[in-house]
Amino acid sequence: MAVLKVHGAVFSTASMRVFACLYEKDLDFQFVPIDMKAGQHKSETFLSLNPFGQVPALEVGDQKLFESRAITQYIAEEYADKGTQLTCPGKPLAPLLVWKEVEAHQFDPVASKLNWELVFKPMFGMTADPAVVEENEAKLGKVLDIYEARLAQSKYLACDCFTLADMHHLPNLHYLMGTPVKKLFDSRPHVSAWAANISSRPAWSKVVAMQKQ
Amino acid sequence: MAVLKVHGAVFSTASMRVFACLYEKDLDFQFVPIDMKAGQHKSETFLSLNPFGQVPALEVGDQKLFESRAITQYIAEEYADKGTQLTCPGKPLAPLLVWKEVEAHQFDPVASKLNWELVFKPMFGMTADPAVVEENEAKLGKVLDIYEARLAQSKYLACDCFTLADMHHLPNLHYLMGTPVKKLFDSRPHVSAWAANISSRPAWSKVVAMQKQ
Repeated sequence: MAVLKVHGAVFSTASMRVFACLYEKDLDFQFVPIDMKAGQHKSETFLSLNPFGQVPALEVGDQKLFESRAITQYIAEEYADKGTQLTCPGKPLAPLLVWKEVEAHQFDPVASKLNWELVFKPMFGMTADPAVVEENEAKLGKVLDIYEARLAQSKYLACDCFTLADMHHLPNLHYLMGTPVKKLFDSRPHVSAWAANISSRPAWSKVVAMQKQ
Repeated sequence: MAVLKVHGAVFSTASMRVFACLYEKDLDFQFVPIDMKAGQHKSETFLSLNPFGQVPALEVGDQKLFESRAITQYIAEEYADKGTQLTCPGKPLAPLLVWKEVEAHQFDPVASKLNWELVFKPMFGMTADPAVVEENEAKLGKVLDIYEARLAQSKYLACDCFTLADMHHLPNLHYLMGTPVKKLFDSRPHVSAWAANISSRPAWSKVVAMQKQ
């Protein structure tokens, strides 16, 4: 089997999404740390892997992939017989397609803005903008109301098993749970149970452990 | 075959993405216009189709789908033997996955902001913010530099045939070509040829014609 080589950074949400997938699929991979503080993601070498200069990038044989959700979909399809299935085999196709897009277009933009203000700005010595936080907390609350209704009917977002649609949330969810935004999850019982459930997966613990090495 | 019922609006980019797909696949569909000016997309009836209150939504049999890119992927897979293929059968999977995500996460956010400022704000009697336009023109230029390099090597984004990755660009591309942002496409020969090529597809002409009815 071709070696899977992931170029990324342990604190990057997009990289964490890919690590989660590799651990769920129980695949060996080689991690190549990219020093973003030193601007390594804008180096010529890295741009030959991803011309957009963003982590992560995956090399497998002579193939080069970027965009975290393209990489996870690729891994789920190419290594379908390994580890956790991450799709809903034998189930209708539509809910998985829909809820993957919901994560990407409804949850991620708002969650990423909140994490930028509340986690990454302080990490870089900057101050959060309370107006941006307030605006995006309100938006996230509305999104989570819809999740609450969905998760009252279904244990996971796409079907009755854990899929890419759930997994893609983990990096942003992880950071948000360390901020006051946690209250928006805690106040919604089905969302709260789902968040606790998917965060306690052994594969996810391995991703979090990478940050402590 | 179950009737395909699309609830949408002819001027909405996300709806246009779905219409393009249906015409490419040569599928009959029933169009249910949603009057967004009257707030019909926030009505209880529409929210039962898409709880996020955004057009379009697709009903097919007892299935309800939303998020335009989930709908197009669903149609491409469920009706694989109809009309244009829209995927790269027999080709490596990775480039299609990657370039679909590039459209969604690199092109669309910038193109949508420019269209909001330059097309939709004036349509609603508002004035464009020159600073937002300038910032996003610069961003789009950088994205299109990467497209230029890609399209110098490949006739279409994902492979040598027209796929979802190209098709998903059409609505935003269509509106941008009616604004001064057109210059960013015109100044890049491969991007310009690709834009002209995909915009001249008969299926796309049918989407544009829907706006003139």
